[in-house]
Amino acid sequence: MTLSSSVQSCIQDCLRCYQTCQSNAAGMCLEQGGAHVAPEHMRLMLSCAEVCRNAAAVMLNQSPQHPAVCRACAEFCSACADSCAKVGGMDECVQACRSCAESCKKMAA
Amino acid sequence: MTLSSSVQSCIQDCLRCYQTCQSNAAGMCLEQGGAHVAPEHMRLMLSCAEVCRNAAAVMLNQSPQHPAVCRACAEFCSACADSCAKVGGMDECVQACRSCAESCKKMAA
Amino acid sequence: MTLSSSVQSCIQDCLRCYQTCQSNAAGMCLEQGGAHVAPEHMRLMLSCAEVCRNAAAVMLNQSPQHPAVCRACAEFCSACADSCAKVGGMDECVQACRSCAESCKKMAA
Amino acid sequence: MTLSSSVQSCIQDCLRCYQTCQSNAAGMCLEQGGAHVAPEHMRLMLSCAEVCRNAAAVMLNQSPQHPAVCRACAEFCSACADSCAKVGGMDECVQACRSCAESCKKMAA
Repeated sequence: MTLSSSVQSCIQDCLRCYQTCQSNAAGMCLEQGGAHVAPEHMRLMLSCAEVCRNAAAVMLNQSPQHPAVCRACAEFCSACADSCAKVGGMDECVQACRSCAESCKKMAA
Repeated sequence: MTLSSSVQSCIQDCLRCYQTCQSNAAGMCLEQGGAHVAPEHMRLMLSCAEVCRNAAAVMLNQSPQHPAVCRACAEFCSACADSCAKVGGMDECVQACRSCAESCKKMAA
Repeated sequence: MTLSSSVQSCIQDCLRCYQTCQSNAAGMCLEQGGAHVAPEHMRLMLSCAEVCRNAAAVMLNQSPQHPAVCRACAEFCSACADSCAKVGGMDECVQACRSCAESCKKMAA
Repeated sequence: MTLSSSVQSCIQDCLRCYQTCQSNAAGMCLEQGGAHVAPEHMRLMLSCAEVCRNAAAVMLNQSPQHPAVCRACAEFCSACADSCAKVGGMDECVQACRSCAESCKKMAA
């Protein structure tokens, strides 16, 4: 890869957040039920996973327009971190989302 | 689906643009070579396809944060339409990208 | 597109099934709760959507190895149709999954 | 995550192969041109990336049908490794594809 180290680092943050959100949505949330499967929360988890994966793809493609998707990704990750914090018992997700939001905000700047 | 007709229509525009960009990038562009496989052009085609598919997914998920991805999608589609127009012989792509950009701009407003 | 009409038709079946499974999983299933959000059912809905979208992508790329993914797709769609039939009230999903399974089985042959 | 260590390891192999194929297709291949952008080669690179990402998603979803997609993934990775070896100068891709094919074959067994 000839990607800059900041782009590479953001790709890793996005793919980590993707994995954390997807596996927790399909794993822990569905198993716990209750607030964990509230429509707004689950939709946000699934969309956050999707948007993180998308941001990684656009950076892997070396597209100079990547700030636009990183900006969107930061917004989803921030909202998802808040939703996970409110639901509770989702510290791994909160942390992955906050790290990814931070990383994407820098790329979007 | 309980999605509004404007969201449903934007999903269709995104999936049409996704199909057009992906099939032309992997089909016509690779077969023609030359300007059609210039790195900047191909990367934009591939990323535009990716971002369109992502916007459709977020709208199918009924995520209220969809304007953020629609805004990014409109930016990629506009840039891709311009690149296709410059390369030439890509009218189907130009048109799908312009329609999708228009549709996504409305959703992002 | 220079894709054969049978490939084009299978791509449409895959994208229709993708949309139906994704929007019902994130929409109706989460709203209904109960059996609709049973882990096995929701995971199958989400994975079926994912695999359908993947099969469409590989066919849009004109990859001669597409039968391998169409075979996998047929398996997910058949299982998802059965699960939706068992849960009940998901006729749109049952039908989209059955059509897609049929279409993918032909491509895989 | 409550995924078994063999599944977790296969997910990592798939995501590594995804990143390697996607970034080399959009990066090195487009920059080098010639045999690197031959339609058959590029299509295989792009589809292999897509199928790897899909296999990871299905395993993250804990879907018991994952062997079907792992089998397809192994086939794409093996074919892509061969194509990369023939084109030459793509050792990183050859290795990522061979590792992922091996890992997916075990999951599919």
